[in-house]
Amino acid sequence: MQSWLDIPADSHFSLANVPFGIISHAGSGGARVGATRLGDWAVDLSVPEAAGLLAEAFEQKETSFFAKPTLNDFAGLPARIRQNVRLAIQSLFRSNSSLPDDLHSRAVLTLDSVETHLPFSIPDFVDYSIFPAHALGAGRAIFGPQNQMPPAWNALPMAYNGRAGTVSVKNEIVRPQGQTRAFSAAREVSVGSCQALDWEFEVGAFVAEPTQDGTVLTPSTATSHLFGFVLLNDWSARDVQAFEMVPLGPFNGKSFATTISPWVVVPEALEPFATVKPPRLEGTAFEEPEYLREKEGAKTNYDIECTTTLHLASNPSTAEPVAKANFAQAFWSFPQLLTYQTYSGARLQTGDLLGSGTISNMGDRSQGCMLELSQGGKVPLKIGGEERRWIEDGDEVVFSAVAGEEGGKVGFGELRGKVLPTSTLRMA
Amino acid sequence: MQSWLDIPADSHFSLANVPFGIISHAGSGGARVGATRLGDWAVDLSVPEAAGLLAEAFEQKETSFFAKPTLNDFAGLPARIRQNVRLAIQSLFRSNSSLPDDLHSRAVLTLDSVETHLPFSIPDFVDYSIFPAHALGAGRAIFGPQNQMPPAWNALPMAYNGRAGTVSVKNEIVRPQGQTRAFSAAREVSVGSCQALDWEFEVGAFVAEPTQDGTVLTPSTATSHLFGFVLLNDWSARDVQAFEMVPLGPFNGKSFATTISPWVVVPEALEPFATVKPPRLEGTAFEEPEYLREKEGAKTNYDIECTTTLHLASNPSTAEPVAKANFAQAFWSFPQLLTYQTYSGARLQTGDLLGSGTISNMGDRSQGCMLELSQGGKVPLKIGGEERRWIEDGDEVVFSAVAGEEGGKVGFGELRGKVLPTSTLRMA
Repeated sequence: MQSWLDIPADSHFSLANVPFGIISHAGSGGARVGATRLGDWAVDLSVPEAAGLLAEAFEQKETSFFAKPTLNDFAGLPARIRQNVRLAIQSLFRSNSSLPDDLHSRAVLTLDSVETHLPFSIPDFVDYSIFPAHALGAGRAIFGPQNQMPPAWNALPMAYNGRAGTVSVKNEIVRPQGQTRAFSAAREVSVGSCQALDWEFEVGAFVAEPTQDGTVLTPSTATSHLFGFVLLNDWSARDVQAFEMVPLGPFNGKSFATTISPWVVVPEALEPFATVKPPRLEGTAFEEPEYLREKEGAKTNYDIECTTTLHLASNPSTAEPVAKANFAQAFWSFPQLLTYQTYSGARLQTGDLLGSGTISNMGDRSQGCMLELSQGGKVPLKIGGEERRWIEDGDEVVFSAVAGEEGGKVGFGELRGKVLPTSTLRMA
Repeated sequence: MQSWLDIPADSHFSLANVPFGIISHAGSGGARVGATRLGDWAVDLSVPEAAGLLAEAFEQKETSFFAKPTLNDFAGLPARIRQNVRLAIQSLFRSNSSLPDDLHSRAVLTLDSVETHLPFSIPDFVDYSIFPAHALGAGRAIFGPQNQMPPAWNALPMAYNGRAGTVSVKNEIVRPQGQTRAFSAAREVSVGSCQALDWEFEVGAFVAEPTQDGTVLTPSTATSHLFGFVLLNDWSARDVQAFEMVPLGPFNGKSFATTISPWVVVPEALEPFATVKPPRLEGTAFEEPEYLREKEGAKTNYDIECTTTLHLASNPSTAEPVAKANFAQAFWSFPQLLTYQTYSGARLQTGDLLGSGTISNMGDRSQGCMLELSQGGKVPLKIGGEERRWIEDGDEVVFSAVAGEEGGKVGFGELRGKVLPTSTLRMA
């Protein structure tokens, strides 16, 4: 699929992608507007929308879905309309099309002339744990090599509610402080700056159309309630988490920051890379229940290569990949997660965010967090001539994920996160 | 404090109370507006505000804080202004004052002519466990009589993130379905309608002024960030919770519904009933950390009598009190909870809701949930000639809580919740 716009062949944002995001720029008077990204361009979608170029797709003459500070109104539209709008945007940039000069100059913007913002107002954030390698590896890093999978693993997708109010698209986070239990042999308890700060490489999914209280979805009907996907870093203070989490689960150890990539990749763009899920685990106590079961051979996973790179504070130009994993190893699909959430009768709201949990595969250097890579800080990772048990102040972790081949790549770009020291916190 | 309005002497809503809420009524054209409650009257506050009667207190000529569908904008104002506005409202209804006839007829409404609504848009809901009797009793009901307090109990307030999107002021909830582990000796796992539905009697607190990311409060500076309090029912599917909650905490077992009372009682109204907290527990492993410590003798608890009444489906006119407990036994104060949340660097937003956890005292029939009252369903409660291990379809549980004496009572009114059958759920 060729475009008249100059899009590098290795870009994650080929014309096959067409993700959605929120930007502000000088031409919008600083107002936040809906946008897409093509190659190294950001496109202010409120411009073609105001010019009526999307009216047919919206099935309405005058709309302002992209003249809004979030994607919530757009995402709340029926799937048919959302999909047609994306196809109409794609058409505008195909080789056989063009944009009038005045629209071009107002809509097509260089990346350095725009600021990206949180794409949604997020009513609820739920974080899952759908990768068996992580459930096993993280458990063993904390509780020892004899630790088994959680007993309910095969029966339901494990989850906890996260803090929606600290989800952001920031590129920096502040090392939190808290009440900690060390990962040393003595497991000392103390109070102060986190000494075991970690990232978690996840994919996040945003909810499109809402449901009413008491409406229960199936894996098949849940599909149209998925708007799209981002990369998500579930920053974790492992030593805070270790002290607080029995019996109510993680709280302050994960509430201080969750960062996401700004461009939301839609399911239609990932459809060519859909795969079947791995086989059910054997030897576990419980079965997958009927209400969560997908059709035999349903392709609801995606073949997405996920790469974690670390830039050390001491030498930021050294960018060493520390891990690679594929999303296709997910044990539960996002339609199953939505089904699970609604089975109790709970409603979904547009903009609800679901995290996949850490994307880890079996094998060396294929884990999405330090907790697994360094086995709970016991086996330091050798990187660029240094050692890391956990991420340090000034280090920057970069997530990247992509599907497809040169010229037609569909990817998420990068999610970058640099660690600022605890001294950045202010008393009030 | 006497009013020219007719307020029954036993009302929870004496002129000493003046809570805030959100109502709609015919005179507002169905629009949601800010309101207070006095005796059996609801007062539309947008009427005196529009007439300029609150301008001095707001320190602005023309305002429309009460012509909004939630209290968020009002609650975001500095504490001084919020307090002055409440005093100005109180003044309007004192014996020596009056309201012009046209304002009176438009603002002072009978309860049956108004509908109450959720008072806030709620960015995040966090549920704590601050009553030692509950931490001990609930643990023993689940794990057996030898079970001890969680090890970190004395060191930090235990908490989990709840689902903000299912908090409501509804008077009915639907019995959820889920994947359950029975409270029988065999602990069978199955899928379907919850067989161990429970209430949890809590007090909820709403956040007033927000904080910025990275701003850390102290128990003393946190006080002005508290807007006020409601009764909260943290509905719990105990058999769902029992299967899902290791190791990530409760999720679907508590996500289907949380109900709150509609009138938010402010700290100034409860100030005369402030008490010191109970002594720290002895013989526990960890100390309260310096950053959470309050001044010696600080009165940050409240002497509030909490009564749970059950109306049986078989005989709704029988209203039998099943439990009484006092809020003064809380182990951590709300200013401490806010301090704890911000210590990691996480921001607060106006409208954030914090639950106290189940209000239980030591002693017979002084527990805020069936899990404790029936010892995990093992010892059925005898009520109105029937037995209850858990709450049944058609039963209605009523929470009531009040402080003070005849003529000057400050209370929350009632929080009523009736259970509808699982068959009310709809597939989509």
